[in-house]
Amino acid sequence: MARDVEALDLPAWSRASGPSQGPQCRDTMAHLDSEVKEECLREDLRFYFMNPCEKFRARQQIPWKMGLQILKIVMVTTQLVRFGLSNQLVVAFKEENTAAFKHLFLKGYSGSDEDDYSCSVYTQEDTYDSIFFAINQFHRLRNLSLGTLGYGESEDNRIALKVCKQHYKKGTMFPSNETLNIDSDIEIDCIHLDLEALSKDPQDWKNSSFFRLEFYRLLQIDISFQLKGIDLQTIHSRELPDCYVFQNMIIFDNKAHSGKIKIYFNSDAKIEECKDLKISGSIQKNTQYVLVFDAFVIVICLASLILCTRSIVLALRLRKRFLKFFLEKYKRHVCNADQREFINQWYILVIISDLLTISGSVLKMEIKAKNLTNYNLCSILLGTSTLFVWVGVIRYLGYFQAYNVLILTMQASLPKVLRFCACAGMIYLGYTFCGWIVLGPYHNKSPEDQHYPRKI
Amino acid sequence: MARDVEALDLPAWSRASGPSQGPQCRDTMAHLDSEVKEECLREDLRFYFMNPCEKFRARQQIPWKMGLQILKIVMVTTQLVRFGLSNQLVVAFKEENTAAFKHLFLKGYSGSDEDDYSCSVYTQEDTYDSIFFAINQFHRLRNLSLGTLGYGESEDNRIALKVCKQHYKKGTMFPSNETLNIDSDIEIDCIHLDLEALSKDPQDWKNSSFFRLEFYRLLQIDISFQLKGIDLQTIHSRELPDCYVFQNMIIFDNKAHSGKIKIYFNSDAKIEECKDLKISGSIQKNTQYVLVFDAFVIVICLASLILCTRSIVLALRLRKRFLKFFLEKYKRHVCNADQREFINQWYILVIISDLLTISGSVLKMEIKAKNLTNYNLCSILLGTSTLFVWVGVIRYLGYFQAYNVLILTMQASLPKVLRFCACAGMIYLGYTFCGWIVLGPYHNKSPEDQHYPRKI
Amino acid sequence: MARDVEALDLPAWSRASGPSQGPQCRDTMAHLDSEVKEECLREDLRFYFMNPCEKFRARQQIPWKMGLQILKIVMVTTQLVRFGLSNQLVVAFKEENTAAFKHLFLKGYSGSDEDDYSCSVYTQEDTYDSIFFAINQFHRLRNLSLGTLGYGESEDNRIALKVCKQHYKKGTMFPSNETLNIDSDIEIDCIHLDLEALSKDPQDWKNSSFFRLEFYRLLQIDISFQLKGIDLQTIHSRELPDCYVFQNMIIFDNKAHSGKIKIYFNSDAKIEECKDLKISGSIQKNTQYVLVFDAFVIVICLASLILCTRSIVLALRLRKRFLKFFLEKYKRHVCNADQREFINQWYILVIISDLLTISGSVLKMEIKAKNLTNYNLCSILLGTSTLFVWVGVIRYLGYFQAYNVLILTMQASLPKVLRFCACAGMIYLGYTFCGWIVLGPYHNKSPEDQHYPRKI
Amino acid sequence: MARDVEALDLPAWSRASGPSQGPQCRDTMAHLDSEVKEECLREDLRFYFMNPCEKFRARQQIPWKMGLQILKIVMVTTQLVRFGLSNQLVVAFKEENTAAFKHLFLKGYSGSDEDDYSCSVYTQEDTYDSIFFAINQFHRLRNLSLGTLGYGESEDNRIALKVCKQHYKKGTMFPSNETLNIDSDIEIDCIHLDLEALSKDPQDWKNSSFFRLEFYRLLQIDISFQLKGIDLQTIHSRELPDCYVFQNMIIFDNKAHSGKIKIYFNSDAKIEECKDLKISGSIQKNTQYVLVFDAFVIVICLASLILCTRSIVLALRLRKRFLKFFLEKYKRHVCNADQREFINQWYILVIISDLLTISGSVLKMEIKAKNLTNYNLCSILLGTSTLFVWVGVIRYLGYFQAYNVLILTMQASLPKVLRFCACAGMIYLGYTFCGWIVLGPYHNKSPEDQHYPRKI
Repeated sequence: MARDVEALDLPAWSRASGPSQGPQCRDTMAHLDSEVKEECLREDLRFYFMNPCEKFRARQQIPWKMGLQILKIVMVTTQLVRFGLSNQLVVAFKEENTAAFKHLFLKGYSGSDEDDYSCSVYTQEDTYDSIFFAINQFHRLRNLSLGTLGYGESEDNRIALKVCKQHYKKGTMFPSNETLNIDSDIEIDCIHLDLEALSKDPQDWKNSSFFRLEFYRLLQIDISFQLKGIDLQTIHSRELPDCYVFQNMIIFDNKAHSGKIKIYFNSDAKIEECKDLKISGSIQKNTQYVLVFDAFVIVICLASLILCTRSIVLALRLRKRFLKFFLEKYKRHVCNADQREFINQWYILVIISDLLTISGSVLKMEIKAKNLTNYNLCSILLGTSTLFVWVGVIRYLGYFQAYNVLILTMQASLPKVLRFCACAGMIYLGYTFCGWIVLGPYHNKSPEDQHYPRKI
Repeated sequence: MARDVEALDLPAWSRASGPSQGPQCRDTMAHLDSEVKEECLREDLRFYFMNPCEKFRARQQIPWKMGLQILKIVMVTTQLVRFGLSNQLVVAFKEENTAAFKHLFLKGYSGSDEDDYSCSVYTQEDTYDSIFFAINQFHRLRNLSLGTLGYGESEDNRIALKVCKQHYKKGTMFPSNETLNIDSDIEIDCIHLDLEALSKDPQDWKNSSFFRLEFYRLLQIDISFQLKGIDLQTIHSRELPDCYVFQNMIIFDNKAHSGKIKIYFNSDAKIEECKDLKISGSIQKNTQYVLVFDAFVIVICLASLILCTRSIVLALRLRKRFLKFFLEKYKRHVCNADQREFINQWYILVIISDLLTISGSVLKMEIKAKNLTNYNLCSILLGTSTLFVWVGVIRYLGYFQAYNVLILTMQASLPKVLRFCACAGMIYLGYTFCGWIVLGPYHNKSPEDQHYPRKI
Repeated sequence: MARDVEALDLPAWSRASGPSQGPQCRDTMAHLDSEVKEECLREDLRFYFMNPCEKFRARQQIPWKMGLQILKIVMVTTQLVRFGLSNQLVVAFKEENTAAFKHLFLKGYSGSDEDDYSCSVYTQEDTYDSIFFAINQFHRLRNLSLGTLGYGESEDNRIALKVCKQHYKKGTMFPSNETLNIDSDIEIDCIHLDLEALSKDPQDWKNSSFFRLEFYRLLQIDISFQLKGIDLQTIHSRELPDCYVFQNMIIFDNKAHSGKIKIYFNSDAKIEECKDLKISGSIQKNTQYVLVFDAFVIVICLASLILCTRSIVLALRLRKRFLKFFLEKYKRHVCNADQREFINQWYILVIISDLLTISGSVLKMEIKAKNLTNYNLCSILLGTSTLFVWVGVIRYLGYFQAYNVLILTMQASLPKVLRFCACAGMIYLGYTFCGWIVLGPYHNKSPEDQHYPRKI
Repeated sequence: MARDVEALDLPAWSRASGPSQGPQCRDTMAHLDSEVKEECLREDLRFYFMNPCEKFRARQQIPWKMGLQILKIVMVTTQLVRFGLSNQLVVAFKEENTAAFKHLFLKGYSGSDEDDYSCSVYTQEDTYDSIFFAINQFHRLRNLSLGTLGYGESEDNRIALKVCKQHYKKGTMFPSNETLNIDSDIEIDCIHLDLEALSKDPQDWKNSSFFRLEFYRLLQIDISFQLKGIDLQTIHSRELPDCYVFQNMIIFDNKAHSGKIKIYFNSDAKIEECKDLKISGSIQKNTQYVLVFDAFVIVICLASLILCTRSIVLALRLRKRFLKFFLEKYKRHVCNADQREFINQWYILVIISDLLTISGSVLKMEIKAKNLTNYNLCSILLGTSTLFVWVGVIRYLGYFQAYNVLILTMQASLPKVLRFCACAGMIYLGYTFCGWIVLGPYHNKSPEDQHYPRKI
């Protein structure tokens, strides 16, 4: 953009003079007569629209800002990659635990989810088997599990499994006669199965009236229990281990009453600080090094933020001088497009990126210190800032003449492309709605569409 | 299109006058002399080819029609989405029931269909097992099924399973001697298996002569039965439950006599009004709100329909005046292209869309009131009308200069693109026929193409 | 092409005259003086380069040839589709039979082939089981198979299963000591297992020394047998049933000695005329109708062939006259490009297409009459001819001005596109060779590429 | 490039003379006066920039170099294909052996790897079963395996299976109380299970204290053993068989402590010369023919290398003469672009390609002679050289006028395309980092994202 200055309707004299030989005149300007003032402003304007290389050649001004940006790219990318890798370990631990739970507690689990649910049953016998299997496996967990798992305590300090069933309050139904008598209010019954209760009389609880299900009015069965685990893996990366609380729930969903009960398994993992950690051996904590690195990133971004803000302030001041001078000399206002040239949009991008990086880094330090677990927000902040920092590299490519042509062409064609997208978008929206309702997968198939064998 | 008027060969004077300052002259035109009449027509023509913004600026005419169209977009899309979502529930109920039936009645069903058939058997023993399995499961259905299912009655008021077999009338076949003696007429035998008959002597019916199959002349076995179900899910959306009749048929297809019997499962679900519904509890019907919404859509579309028809009528009247005047003054006819400019094709699109919406909404109300179950037609009507309404948005985009250029370019290039498609289509058609026969998957592979292990 | 005549350097006078009013002068030309002769030639040339519509307008000549071509498109496409559909039935019968054989004779067959082989075994026990399973199933075939199958007789008129094994003549091998003593000549042993032998003493043949396999020198085991079947399906399409001979072979391939024996199943189906067919019932043969249709196609193509040949002959004669006249009058030769204009390349395409259709139709009639089974060649002939016939439609599109521009543009750009493809092809070839050897799937992986668990 | 000479600013006189009729003046040049010298240089320059056809026409110089290049393309491609095919056999043998090992030693192996590991277990019982299954299968290997396998000896000359377990030195862990007491140093225990030990008392070793695993501190179990095999397949291609040593390791990875133990199978195959080979029968070694072919390729490449080097030397000498003459006559330097024209970049490509081919062929001969097994490096050398040789074909296409235009166009547009890629690459890099962290599959899912059944 800045390079376009040659094409603007700035008065011709601002380009008429030879190579820059004028004195440094910014501060002493007020005391000079009109001619010197004009020369001074012309000099400053020319300098303002130079790129770093030209500035260096003109006044030996070392391009601190550019160097800082390049350093920032390296630092911010490194920080993002490190955060992503440590994040992966946490996520992998949770996902592998969830997979292990599904194999342990779901009868006939195939290793991959069917749709949005894990598996499904179609007969009454299979439903009872699946429920009792889950309860039995919970009872035998210590002898089954390979992980670092222990029972967690529920709200009332008992190690127990909570089984709840939702059903319509009362009802009789005779589908053959198409008669239905139902109370549409929903009732929830729960029982708590202690570990001790399970051990004492293994068949007793199975025969309780709770487990005599009336499927035609049953809506949902939930089996919920809490497990605790420790993520030892972090020891290898020289960090302290995390303790996890897994709030698991197995849901048998019969809301559709379609003859198919869908089984969902939800595992909600929370990270907690371990209460009592004793780690001996030849391992050292390296958390402090990470914190120092993060702090260094923050410092760099602050510096970049301050330098860019200063540039914008100076640019606004220069614009004010130019407008005033222009009004005095030519008695007319500078057009808006020229005024906008003074504000470098790249600086605004850099400032936004810096603000994002700083807040992201602060959040990351808090997460490392186990004060917060807001991984999501931190990912978005760091990710967006890195995106902006890399996009900012295009600015430096624009300093090369050949690239500048390319960039200006792309800028010019952008609005046309967007306009075409808007038109196509309208047609696409209409087509989507129409296609969804007419051709969609959930379209009510007429009986003629069904598959019959070839007719003779 | 309307904006192209500048480029037409309308007489130059119609654009010569300054900004619109003339009197409102439409109704008093007949009583004025020729000059005033000409001025009046010029004025009307200029006004006719304005877009809504310009009309507002010229005569402070509020763009009711445009507002109505925008309201219509919102209403029609909302109606479509609501209908689609309620449709999804119905379809999901049917599909889940069909899946449950396949799991219950087909032996060794894997959970997904093989091709267009559900599963297949390759030995005589497997065939007998599959038939007897289906019959047994039907007998035990009450203790198996998780859904709200009951037995349905067949035509002669019996709860029974009907097994039919199609075979050639008589035949002997000795493939080893390549001798074949067959009567190509087809015979159909059926038996009805009552629930009582199945209960009394479980092995008796299996040993009946009916189930001694002669596979070389067997063509097809059909097992058909009727089940009834109730879709309780609609209670949650505060509607009355639907009763369903499932007409199921299991088909063992041996028509190819290729050693592979394909098993098809067809479930034809019909929605019926439940006979005897008693629903208590804190639930309210909200059907009336939906009906009010639909009625409102109809009113809006009627209004839009009337306004657009009126505009077209006025345009035709204006054209008549213009043609007459032109003939009188210049003694020649207006060319066809100019005549066509008077009829706004967007209005025709809007009228078609309105007619579709009105008929779709009426159909939807009938479906809601359980008088009709014609979901398919209703989907097509509402879907097409929504498509047209959204495409109509492009018209309003055409009011912006930048977009208008784009739209005119697309219009101009369309015939060339279509022409290219026609040429490519010819080559493609020829290539398709040729490829189908020469390279197609059903191509008769020669023995040399078969896979042998690598030769030594 | 023909429309380009305006752009050629034919002498200007040939276009100077007004609308065609000259006499029909072709035959009487020789007796007229030079001026009349010139007028006559000019007239004939103008007529020659007209398209059918113009010819009709000029001399009321009805475009028989064009009508014939359009009729031919319909006929040829119909014939191709009918042949393809009947071909599909034959292929489907063979493929379903092969699938049924694999399910019957291969132990643990999963329903789909693994790679190019059907299944594989990894232990000695599984190998013996698979061999004995196949032999047992063959023995029990009558009580197993659902198809119209019977045992076929081998060369020496016995119903028998032939088991052959290939192995190195002799050998001792101690991989632990890396010692190997082997005779690289290959020996083949076979036994024939009669149905009677299999029935008499079921365990006897299993314990024979033949089935004591020495895997380290075993190369291959083949189990081959013949089955016969009848394709009854054709009765429905009112054709006579076909008899099939299935020459099956199960191959246990141990040539790689890699610890994995691949099992191939090859089924080579031959169509034979059934010896003794008695089909009663209300069915009629419709083979004759198909033959009449094919004969009609042949007649049409012959007519088209003759008309096109005649056109080319007339064109060559006209060219000769023109060249002679040109030489006489202007004393110079006509350039090659102009000479080439006289030969219409579309006629050559039509002639090739007609020849292909005629030979294809004759072949098809022979196949229908069960004299030949050369489906492949017939498919290629009919497919190619249909491709040419459809491509020929582009010629008629070229009669419309708008299309002609498009077609000429495509013709002009073709050589440049091909030239670019040649250059890209060179780079692609080099890249393919390089990629195959360096990155290919069969690249010798170094041990470091293997998957180890994450290092601590 | 060479054809561009017409467009260069070489002095006009160098093109002014007629067809080449001058004397062969290269060697006698020094003794002639200035005018003759100039004529001589002009003649040499014109000859230098001719293509082979023109050279042949001008001086009847037979294009040896071009013929050699064409011969080289054929030879190098043949060599590459032969090497690739023989390489495939080796790789297939290794891969099939690995697949066979996985089926033999991994319990419940499904035939394909799950992710980067082969299979996984989730319960303590399954873990013990998998370990004991592998050990038992090793013991029974002789009666199981279909391949040419024997036991290999470990370092201390015992036929034994080595089982190692890694675990934390000591530890107690109560996840329920969130207490952890662990020594982060890792201990490795190993036992060697002799074949004899396994045979004597089959249950004894299972009950040893080594196999009482404490899963909460267990990190990894490795089962490693050595097998030997012989690849007999090479006999068919008339080469000597190779002996292989398979160093297998089964790894049970519990480093994540997530309740899921991943089982890896690594098979590291080394090719060794067989110690004691006795192959009788009608087979002949054809290794020598391959070696002769490779030697021939080397000779051709050497010839091509020498010819191209000579051409470059001559070109440099000619440039020197031209520069000197130009400086003398016109008193100015020749510009760089013109100087670069003298060095034919294709020759440099050919020289690099020749060097690669020669080193690749030498390596291939060493591999054939079983001195080296460096398949990877050899593949890369031969592949790259073949790529260059084929790309070199484009040079000969450039001799045709039509192709030359195409090639020059591509050369001119290349930098612009690369520049666009650089810009797009920046945005892509930023987007990738951002997408990885924000949307990536390893993103830490918040609990709200989990799948719950539809709410009532």
